[in-house]
Amino acid sequence: MTIETETGSPEAPPKTRLHVDEPLAAGATVGLDHERAHYLRHVLRLDRGDRVALFNGRDGEWSARIDGFGKGWCSLAVDRQRRPQAPEPDLWLLFAPIKRTRIDFVAEKAAELGASVVWPVLTRHTDVARVNVDRLRANAIEAAEQCERLTVPDLREPAKLDQVTRDWSSDRTILLCAEAGPVKPIAAAVAGLKPGPVAILTGPEGGFAKDELDGLLKLPFVVPVGLGPRILRADTAALAALACWQALAGDWATGGADARPPFRSQEPG
Amino acid sequence: MTIETETGSPEAPPKTRLHVDEPLAAGATVGLDHERAHYLRHVLRLDRGDRVALFNGRDGEWSARIDGFGKGWCSLAVDRQRRPQAPEPDLWLLFAPIKRTRIDFVAEKAAELGASVVWPVLTRHTDVARVNVDRLRANAIEAAEQCERLTVPDLREPAKLDQVTRDWSSDRTILLCAEAGPVKPIAAAVAGLKPGPVAILTGPEGGFAKDELDGLLKLPFVVPVGLGPRILRADTAALAALACWQALAGDWATGGADARPPFRSQEPG
Repeated sequence: MTIETETGSPEAPPKTRLHVDEPLAAGATVGLDHERAHYLRHVLRLDRGDRVALFNGRDGEWSARIDGFGKGWCSLAVDRQRRPQAPEPDLWLLFAPIKRTRIDFVAEKAAELGASVVWPVLTRHTDVARVNVDRLRANAIEAAEQCERLTVPDLREPAKLDQVTRDWSSDRTILLCAEAGPVKPIAAAVAGLKPGPVAILTGPEGGFAKDELDGLLKLPFVVPVGLGPRILRADTAALAALACWQALAGDWATGGADARPPFRSQEPG
Repeated sequence: MTIETETGSPEAPPKTRLHVDEPLAAGATVGLDHERAHYLRHVLRLDRGDRVALFNGRDGEWSARIDGFGKGWCSLAVDRQRRPQAPEPDLWLLFAPIKRTRIDFVAEKAAELGASVVWPVLTRHTDVARVNVDRLRANAIEAAEQCERLTVPDLREPAKLDQVTRDWSSDRTILLCAEAGPVKPIAAAVAGLKPGPVAILTGPEGGFAKDELDGLLKLPFVVPVGLGPRILRADTAALAALACWQALAGDWATGGADARPPFRSQEPG
């Protein structure tokens, strides 16, 4: 399969898509570390001349050609921009950390669902002692690479909930996913928001402590929202709230599939 | 913690919640199998006199007292109804099966998100040879028990997509989660639906085949919907679409948290 590039010449589509830190521009060279070089060469079985798409969260998405492979290194020649950098939804996810598989899942899904910041917050009933932020970040980056976003979520170091809300910038609304208390259905709550940045906040499996919830409800920037009559697990609540916000107020509300360049074929081979 | 029961006397809340097949009514006796008896006795460390909530999808939710334990059995005396059976959303999920952890996850989340039918459908690019329906059903039942719904999803045997659509009852709209083609943002599509039953259909990781998609788009009951500019994994798409439909047209749109009896305390102990 061939696609038309920006300059009109036929060109094979990139075989994969990677996030890098380096600046991207025509003529730039990007070196990959050992792990990624191995992945391209021995897992994907790419070769010199094969193309890879690159993004760094600042310079848009670029096409690069593999121009050298060695033991533990790979060098890429950046030549053409595939997409300019574009604004993305300003949507944070604050979540009380949960156990291993489920927390990995939250990081992955938050990246796919377009969260710009992913922030573990420690609540009273949080029973997870240590959060491996590097692992979460790796999951989020991998998901961002696969889902074709132009940024990766900013994965923050865990912080205590009361500290986070004390330092909060009050122009960012917190949609509090609460199982109890006076909640508004999420669709109605999102429809009633003034335009502006939003954070979704979900509690641990045991829920928020009573006084924690009371304290949150007193904050002027907190809007408690309901996710229906069933009790959702913490990971389900986070994902559901992200999806609802994107559908109603985010970048799902305005089409979007056509804004993507061809990347993966739907046909095998 | 004590709660007021329907008759006004103080009573300890149930320690857990189980789905059973037997009829539930005041005076009924329900026997549990070996595995569940073991779970109550040795995992939850319950004793004679402790209470368990039961539901069967037909008779509402009942409170039952453990009145006998033995090696591999447990007998429960059903006495009081906690909630009458109530209508639930008529929302099906048809999904192309995906690999192990992710398919378990879909079954669990579909139950939490209120799917009434969960149906694996085999598409051209489905690369999963065998679907363990019993395992999916067990995951869905466990999730239904935990999320406090009054039914469990009907987990159907896998069927071929073309067979499923050939036998389709045309009054049920299929919301087709498509990565390509003429899609409407999901919020606009759901808002534009005539009232009636709905099924969400998601494809395999490789997407639908071109002619499969063309065939689906020709069916009068199929509405293609878009889930934003990022490419979602199959499991993410299924859950996001379920959440959006519930928020916009299902039982999340009308409050709901107050309809639940007290069950789990938010405080430890």
